[in-house]
Amino acid sequence: MASGPSSDLTALVVIDVQKAIDDPSWGDDRNNPDCEANIARLLAHWRARGWPIFHVRHLSREPRSTYRPGQPLCEFKDEVAPLAGERVIDKSTNSAFIGTPLERELGDAGIGRVVITGVITNNSVEATARMSGNLGFDTIVVSDATATFGRRDYDGHWRTSAEVHAMSLANIDGEYARVMTTVALLTSA
Amino acid sequence: MASGPSSDLTALVVIDVQKAIDDPSWGDDRNNPDCEANIARLLAHWRARGWPIFHVRHLSREPRSTYRPGQPLCEFKDEVAPLAGERVIDKSTNSAFIGTPLERELGDAGIGRVVITGVITNNSVEATARMSGNLGFDTIVVSDATATFGRRDYDGHWRTSAEVHAMSLANIDGEYARVMTTVALLTSA
Repeated sequence: MASGPSSDLTALVVIDVQKAIDDPSWGDDRNNPDCEANIARLLAHWRARGWPIFHVRHLSREPRSTYRPGQPLCEFKDEVAPLAGERVIDKSTNSAFIGTPLERELGDAGIGRVVITGVITNNSVEATARMSGNLGFDTIVVSDATATFGRRDYDGHWRTSAEVHAMSLANIDGEYARVMTTVALLTSA
Repeated sequence: MASGPSSDLTALVVIDVQKAIDDPSWGDDRNNPDCEANIARLLAHWRARGWPIFHVRHLSREPRSTYRPGQPLCEFKDEVAPLAGERVIDKSTNSAFIGTPLERELGDAGIGRVVITGVITNNSVEATARMSGNLGFDTIVVSDATATFGRRDYDGHWRTSAEVHAMSLANIDGEYARVMTTVALLTSA
């Protein structure tokens, strides 16, 4: 295991940051407008050091999903798009570990630590972070390189994007992963 | 796949309902006081029909956990304790699917549908329900046969057990599983 949060044995995982996430159907209450810029900073840091990067792309099987393949919204957002040769993992469930070779590829590369970024916090990010921790990876979720949307809870109460985000991170932090900011992660690298 | 919510191809899964959950260290804001009684009703229904039951027991590796093995709090609560011969799955992470034979045993038995109950909603129940749905099982989470505790969110705001429960069920419902009440499940069986 590497000693710092970032090393050649620490993978940066970017989840579902495709043009679909800007579709108006998600609503207008999204938090962390700098999420994509922060992911871009992390990508630049990882690329400069040659550390492992996994771009996770969601290919929905739902006919009405904004993430269905074969249409422009399914493309990666420009600011976080993979460079030629970077690894792209396609998934069609929420967790990047189910139906994909991600766990095996991390293990084969001897990677023990995973930094998780992307969208949306309480869905694919949280599902992947929970599994990552439970599978035994030392897992970091970057609080300001993830984002989500406001929604109603099961009792019908509206929860803002900030509230949904904060509840999701509370579930994750200390139980499945450590939650850190982009700056804290970069300055500890 | 069975046509109704309950059949001989529907497993009842009871997660982490051990005496540890009554330890005062969890705090005094727990919701769904009838959770255990509802699980007992579901167990009686499943037993009367000979349908498959999986009791999941958490054996923590944390030295200060109330769920550490070898002490009385780790025992099943009396009202939901397994009968002789019933299957007990031991786990030591949050998800009942990680480090256990649960997925394989469900597959080997041809079980396509899973009914999830137990504690706590936003932790082991949600982690297991998310994986169950993503692994392809038709998954039902029983809203009043699960329970959780109040806690602070990541921004420091106190959230009651009812709020934590409702946010967790909102994440699950329609995305990983269907959420149903005990009565709705029993009357549709």
